[in-house]
Amino acid sequence: MRKTSLFLLFALMSTILFAQQSLWGGQKIVSPEIHPDNTVTFRFFAPKAVKVQVTGDFLPPQKIETQYGKMDIPGVADLKEGKDGVWEYTTPAPLPSELYNYTFIVDGLTNVIDPNNVYVSRDVASLFNIFIIKGGCGDLYSVNKVPHGSLTQRWYNSPTLGYDRRITIYTPAGYETSRKRYPVLYLLHGMGGDEEAWITLGRTVQIMDNLIAEGKAKPMIVVMPNGNVDQEAAPGESSLGLYKPHTDLPRTMEGSMEASFPDIMKFVESNYRVDKKKSARAIAGLSMGGYHSLHISKEYPDKFDYVGLFSAAILPGKEKTSPVYTDLEGKLAKQFSKAPKLYWIAIGKTDFLYKANEEYRALLDKKHYPYIYRESEGGHIWRNWRIYLSEFVPMLFK
Amino acid sequence: MRKTSLFLLFALMSTILFAQQSLWGGQKIVSPEIHPDNTVTFRFFAPKAVKVQVTGDFLPPQKIETQYGKMDIPGVADLKEGKDGVWEYTTPAPLPSELYNYTFIVDGLTNVIDPNNVYVSRDVASLFNIFIIKGGCGDLYSVNKVPHGSLTQRWYNSPTLGYDRRITIYTPAGYETSRKRYPVLYLLHGMGGDEEAWITLGRTVQIMDNLIAEGKAKPMIVVMPNGNVDQEAAPGESSLGLYKPHTDLPRTMEGSMEASFPDIMKFVESNYRVDKKKSARAIAGLSMGGYHSLHISKEYPDKFDYVGLFSAAILPGKEKTSPVYTDLEGKLAKQFSKAPKLYWIAIGKTDFLYKANEEYRALLDKKHYPYIYRESEGGHIWRNWRIYLSEFVPMLFK
Repeated sequence: MRKTSLFLLFALMSTILFAQQSLWGGQKIVSPEIHPDNTVTFRFFAPKAVKVQVTGDFLPPQKIETQYGKMDIPGVADLKEGKDGVWEYTTPAPLPSELYNYTFIVDGLTNVIDPNNVYVSRDVASLFNIFIIKGGCGDLYSVNKVPHGSLTQRWYNSPTLGYDRRITIYTPAGYETSRKRYPVLYLLHGMGGDEEAWITLGRTVQIMDNLIAEGKAKPMIVVMPNGNVDQEAAPGESSLGLYKPHTDLPRTMEGSMEASFPDIMKFVESNYRVDKKKSARAIAGLSMGGYHSLHISKEYPDKFDYVGLFSAAILPGKEKTSPVYTDLEGKLAKQFSKAPKLYWIAIGKTDFLYKANEEYRALLDKKHYPYIYRESEGGHIWRNWRIYLSEFVPMLFK
Repeated sequence: MRKTSLFLLFALMSTILFAQQSLWGGQKIVSPEIHPDNTVTFRFFAPKAVKVQVTGDFLPPQKIETQYGKMDIPGVADLKEGKDGVWEYTTPAPLPSELYNYTFIVDGLTNVIDPNNVYVSRDVASLFNIFIIKGGCGDLYSVNKVPHGSLTQRWYNSPTLGYDRRITIYTPAGYETSRKRYPVLYLLHGMGGDEEAWITLGRTVQIMDNLIAEGKAKPMIVVMPNGNVDQEAAPGESSLGLYKPHTDLPRTMEGSMEASFPDIMKFVESNYRVDKKKSARAIAGLSMGGYHSLHISKEYPDKFDYVGLFSAAILPGKEKTSPVYTDLEGKLAKQFSKAPKLYWIAIGKTDFLYKANEEYRALLDKKHYPYIYRESEGGHIWRNWRIYLSEFVPMLFK
């Protein structure tokens, strides 16, 4: 056989890759470029464009008026056209450490994904680019040289709901080879989320790996189910195919998630080496997931010694008649008579659920039920939920 | 406590979501729309644009001349502007069942991701949208109502390479509760790929779940390692952070992957219930992964009864001096003296590695080594590799 040099083949492969890249986006532009001082330059190649802007949560928010009052929406900044059709914007000041998101706006065209940044997250029906500024909480959201846990996407059967459902499970580094039993945190998403939300938007794997490696959190299993009872799995991961995600789901916050939750615990406890004591079981969630955590923990008062309500919704709509939602005060009395070790409530100052949480805390105060309250800046956003998770997890199972 | 109706809160939440969506892309447009006859309409909202096009592998390819000869690149079609600034293109004929990709071109701006389609795949440094036409192989690439296996992203230690590396492992439905031992397919990616490529671009989970459910494939474990020996993990999943992916990696196809492969087998066989017989072990890969499969299977002639070379590179460049690449003919003689059950070579007619494969087959023919040859249409593309996987897997472990 003649020895065809792979040199030629590689050259050809490179040509093909180059041709593909020129079609598929492999431009030789760096964007975003994070400078050593943590200022950031965004670049966008658009020689024919008249106006290019960037919008994202790294910019000071704009205040807008709605019928419900003032709201913050992401700010917008103009890029300037440089040579060769490359537009640029550099932040005027260093950015604090954080995971940020952004998209471009090109001649009024919104939601333009940066073709030079393959890192995108989905929130309901929208994609946006992400980047991380290190040196603070951004380090916690980064993959570092530490022992890594495992992440599994698998399916369990829910006899109560009558079908198979997808679930995401984090096991800490060493789980597979140790013979220990581990405590479990059940971590629940909000409306429009699914069993992938805490992983992608919440950076749970990175937060857990890093906190455990630093000795700040106990090694634990984190179980992230799908809180939409009529959904097999996240959009694109079920037999519904690649449909457009939406929040208009039937049977939301009407008791079925709470009623079917023992199916999830049973699955986890029969498939993983789990410490089944109340003192080794936590539940937390954001928004709708905080609501689920509130109601599940009071429905099963012997199960959870740690409860985290992150920007939680509190009470169901009046049309929701499930027995899960009757006798709130009586059930809370029972739950707190069993002295949970931690009942943690966190919310941002501008969260639209602030008032509902204030009223709920007044109820707890009136009854002298102990809880810890954490108030942060900002509103109903993932930035807060990552921070809450990072603060909540170190308090567990101590 | 006053019962604040969640009605109001939901209304407000909807407003916020709507505001976010208008910023982040939740336009009320359906794109792509797959019609009952399998024609497809693409839509793009761009009231100020002068020209909107779509490009992708669902269109007839364009032939271009390169210094290495003719090449196919994806075709381009023009959208027409309709009312309300929504541009449209409908395919003139139904599309055959397949998983397709596309992006938009707006006034010369390439690589524009469809803001109405959240399903994207990454190939090296580029993102593109995907959609599936059912009724044929597209069914195999879809999530169906069948028992689902589990997918785990975890890390193993490679003593040979001296560090921890990420690996993707599929276990079939029932693995966790059965007590059986399972055969293993090691499935390797090409240049520019990583431990996620077969999952995202290759639809391996869907293909395996569906073939096993139909009784066409034996339940098996599929192990998808990272074939770039200097890479901890896929871009964005390592301590290098969210860098721009590239193919310019050191130590590629120079023997280290082959030399360190026993670390992977040892990890798998000590962490999973694996049948360790040669007759229960397969290795296959695409392009560089086919090259790895060729060389690993001949380096360890007692290990693999099933070998799949998908569009494989064959021989190293002349500068690669690893002992892995010496005495090809002697090592092949040893491998074939042990009568592997299946040696399967597949390539597309227009693949740039066609000639190298033809020469390799001539060598095998001259020695009367048995193999099965599968020639397909098309070139060095994922469409072929999904088909090859779908055809290879049913032949294993029978």
